Order: sequence, then C-alpha cells, then structure tokens
Amino acid sequence: MKAIEVVNKELVLGDIEKPEPKENEVLIKVMAAGLNRADIAQKNGLYPPPPGASDILGLECSGVITEVGKEVTSRKPGDEVIALLAGGGYAEYVTCPEYHAIRKPLELDWAESASIPEVFATCWLNLFIEAQMREGDKVVFHAGASGIGTAGIQLAKAFGCKSFITAGNKKKVDFCLKLGASEGEIRSKSIFEKIKNWAPDGVDIILDPVGGDYFENNLSILGLEGRLIIIGLMGGASANINLGRLMMKRHKVIGSTIRARDLATKNKVMSDLENKVLPLFEKKELKPIVHEVLTFSECQKAHRIMEANENIGKIILDLN
Amino acid sequence: MKAIEVVNKELVLGDIEKPEPKENEVLIKVMAAGLNRADIAQKNGLYPPPPGASDILGLECSGVITEVGKEVTSRKPGDEVIALLAGGGYAEYVTCPEYHAIRKPLELDWAESASIPEVFATCWLNLFIEAQMREGDKVVFHAGASGIGTAGIQLAKAFGCKSFITAGNKKKVDFCLKLGASEGEIRSKSIFEKIKNWAPDGVDIILDPVGGDYFENNLSILGLEGRLIIIGLMGGASANINLGRLMMKRHKVIGSTIRARDLATKNKVMSDLENKVLPLFEKKELKPIVHEVLTFSECQKAHRIMEANENIGKIILDLN
Repeated sequence: MKAIEVVNKELVLGDIEKPEPKENEVLIKVMAAGLNRADIAQKNGLYPPPPGASDILGLECSGVITEVGKEVTSRKPGDEVIALLAGGGYAEYVTCPEYHAIRKPLELDWAESASIPEVFATCWLNLFIEAQMREGDKVVFHAGASGIGTAGIQLAKAFGCKSFITAGNKKKVDFCLKLGASEGEIRSKSIFEKIKNWAPDGVDIILDPVGGDYFENNLSILGLEGRLIIIGLMGGASANINLGRLMMKRHKVIGSTIRARDLATKNKVMSDLENKVLPLFEKKELKPIVHEVLTFSECQKAHRIMEANENIGKIILDLN
Repeated sequence: MKAIEVVNKELVLGDIEKPEPKENEVLIKVMAAGLNRADIAQKNGLYPPPPGASDILGLECSGVITEVGKEVTSRKPGDEVIALLAGGGYAEYVTCPEYHAIRKPLELDWAESASIPEVFATCWLNLFIEAQMREGDKVVFHAGASGIGTAGIQLAKAFGCKSFITAGNKKKVDFCLKLGASEGEIRSKSIFEKIKNWAPDGVDIILDPVGGDYFENNLSILGLEGRLIIIGLMGGASANINLGRLMMKRHKVIGSTIRARDLATKNKVMSDLENKVLPLFEKKELKPIVHEVLTFSECQKAHRIMEANENIGKIILDLN
C-alpha cells in the first residue's frame, strides 16, 4: 500500500506492506488524515513512536473499516469511522484498537471528520479528565488558533466555561473570538498582565503547549486550586518553580500526552467523545475547523504550513 | 477560659473569652490537643490563620461537646469527639463546624484520640483524594517518623501499598520499619539512589514536606503517572523543574494544605475518616503514635521537642 515515509527528515511517498489487524483491532481504509504538531517532532527524530506503534506518521484519520480482528465486537467492515491512532495515519490503510475508532459524525465530510479525533480527544482528556473542568471555570488556551486551541475554545463554551486565548497575530485572535473565546490577545510580553485583568482572582485551568518560557507566568495567573496542564514544550523544557505559591494556592501542575496512554484511558476518552462530543457536532454546537485540505502528494507542503504556524485549525491530507 | 497565646514568638498561658458556636458549629471542651509543625510556623509569624479562624494555635483536639449551634443536627452535648480545627485547639474550649468533629474512637484515651485528626485527615486527603492511591502503589514518605509519616506508613500498609521512608536517624528508621514501612533510610545524599533501587520503574506517590532541596530528585524517582504532593517547604520554596520529563512521564505535581480548604472538602475527609479509618483503629490495624504527652503549662517544652525534631509521632498537650 502507499504510505508516507520519513527519509532524512523529509516526507517521501513510498510503498509498504499493508498492516493486519490484531485480535482486538480494526483495519481502516484511510479517507483523510489529520496533521499534528507531534508529527513534525517525530519526523525530526524528537518524538519516537511508543513501543508497538507504527513508525509511519499520523495520529488520526477518518475512513471505512475493511477488516476486523477475531475478538472485535463493536465494529464491522463497512463502518464509517474516525479514529485516534498511536501512529500510521499517513497511509492507505491503518490499524487501531476497536474502541479507538468511533462512528463518523453525520453530515461531516471525510476531511472534516479527520480533523476531530486527536484534538478533541486531547482536549477532552485534559480539560475534563485531568483538569476536572466545571461549569463557570475560566480557562486559558495558549496557541488558541491551533487545532487544540480551536477545539478547546469550542468545548469550553459548549460546557459553560469562559476562555482567554493567546495567538500569534490579529487574524488568529479575531478568528478565536468569533469561534467563542471570551477574550484574546496577540502574543507579547504583556499577555499575562492582560489575563490578570480578565481574571483578577486567577484562572482555573491553563492548557499550555509552550512550557519553559511561559511556566512561571502561567503559575502567577493561576487561581486557588488552579490546574496547569503542560501538553507541549515549544518554549523549552526548563523552568523555575515557586513551591510556596504552589502549596498555598494548592495548584496542580500536570504533564500530559495522549499518545502513549494505556488502552483503558483511550477507550474512556473515545467513548466520551462518541457519546458527549459527537452529538454536539451533529447539533452544530461544535464545528470542525479545517485550515486546508491537501492531497497525499502534497504532504511536504502541508508540514511546511504547520511549521510556519500559518494554519488556523487543522491541516488535513486527503487520501480518497 | 484558659488559652495559650503567642507573645513575641513565645507561648504564654493566658485568659481569653470563651468562643460561642455559630449556627452550624459545635463547642468542644478540649481534653487533649495535638501539636503540628504548622503551629510552629504560625507562632513564628510565617503561617497566618485563614480568614475567620481563631488566632489561637492548635489544629486538632479530642474532647466533649458542651453546646451546639441552632442548625447542628449530627452532634449533641455530651458527645465525645475528635476534631479537625482551623485553629484554637490550645485552649479550654474550641468551636468547629459540626462535620469536622467525628466520634472519638472506642478504647483510645484522650491523648491518643487527639493524635489522630490532623495527620490522618492530611494523609487521607493527600493519598486517597489528591493522589488517588490504589492497592499496590509504591509510596515514599519523607520524614517518616513525623506525625504525617507514621500515619501515612500505616494507611499505606492497611490499603495494600508499599512504602519507603526517609528519616533523620537510625532509631526513627527502625521505628518506621516496625510500624510497617517496607524500607527506610537515614537521610543522606544517597537516599534517592536507594529509592531507585527499591523501585526501578519509579514510585507512584511521594508525600513530601521538604520541597526545594528535594524537588528535582523527587521527580527523578517518580514513575509513569507518578504524583508528587508538596505538603511542606522545610528545604526551601525554590526549585528547578524539567518539564520534558514531567510531560513524557505524565507526572502530577500537587501543592496541598488542609487548613484553608473549603468546608465541603473537609466534610468529605472527616466523613471518610469516620467511616473508613476509625474502624481500623478499633480493629487495631492502625494505632495512634504518641511520642509524649505534656501538660498545658509545658507547651513551650512541647514545641521545643518538635523544633528539635526529636519526636517520633505526635506530641500531645493534656488539657484534662
């Protein structure tokens, strides 16, 4: 089958063996695959796939099930699905555990559908399971116009929370505000002051892909029992921490990735997504944010758009 | 009524007005009061009481209810109780919300009973609610011979977990091992290497009253999805943090104090203590660890024992 391989940190269209589903897995004919920042890190040798995962890039797809393992009970060939993958999405076919493939939302096309799994699963896991988000919480999304940001803004709004976003330029900020963010600012030295003005008692949750550069400032804007979720390190991995404030304000600092989680956690997240999030897409309360759809052979270009931070929402590869 | 007051960082026996219970509070005739390290910090002006709390020291007591507020339904005058206090325990009488006073365990005397609330509530909150301790977890208690340590060792053992403790001298380490710790070491530069040997895949939970000096080493011994609970800063408040490891290992760093928590959280903890922990005292699976019982007028001496870290377990003031 066709698949995109990494050769010297470049993406090359290759031909590899079609995977076979294990007993509890489904085989999916991929119709569209979403790009994620982790793909770039993996391409550059900085984010090796977890043990047992495909070494082909690609953490999410939409597609049609063509084969199921012996023990699979919840899915059957012909099912149209969206899937969270530990890898392998940049290919004609991919396998995943049955519960990581959930039904494709009604009325969305393949590209729109492929934009959902990774970012909505990541936001669900981090906001609802890790950070225990509750109605009325004030949430900060750094990189608000990213796939994660655009998913987070919408989830926060849908569940009665307010959000403050930061983004790289005015166009992105405006987009986020239109999408439902309560307030937003272009990234600068003064963003943390502005967040303090927005939330004088501190914010409840920060979903942060920046890390090092932002860490101390993030903790300074966090209110009592606030939760800082570290999901990326675009600003470096090293930081100082004031444990006195952490203790007296009862802060939680939580490191989080979704890819290497155990089956049970991912099953739970995907089940929540199917039951609590997909219906909101079908009621038009949530919408997929697709920046651009590119063909399989344009994958290098697709990566360059993400590397240049040009995208608002998701970049999708069309494999149909 | 008699109460111990702080004058120029010294404890002085004084005479102050007897408190009156509010609508949802009980008034307790104090029979014995436990010392906590927070008392020393408060005496030295480093840990002001939360808004609305008594400025008299004392975070726990045993005693007899003599009066109840209008809306109290669960307790009545004559009830023998142990209580978690936001302050005020170093006195003849103290008030607290009704649900923070739970029944005195059968067969324990007043001093033994007074040794339970603060350390077992703190351990319950941090191990079971914050750190979600599960059977089989490996837990580290720094300062294993402290009140918190001796409570934690016993709770971990009673709930099927293993513990590694550190303490200041051999006598303390031996005491902890006898009490149920799986392994222990005298505090030195090599303790973290020894913990790594004990738990090659990393430990699940660290309950840490040290902070700064230990922070990076604590994170280095924490396994996948491990939880570091900061409950004190005896080693300073400033530290560095490697966010890369935090993220990839999905660590949680949690700042925690019990005193300033909201009513609902304390109600939950005290209810758990009454229903899940007191029965274990009555079955002799847990025991109160009392280092020494001193009289009301010996309170300065009592503080000096704690300040010199001489105690194994709790120091109690007898007010009977």
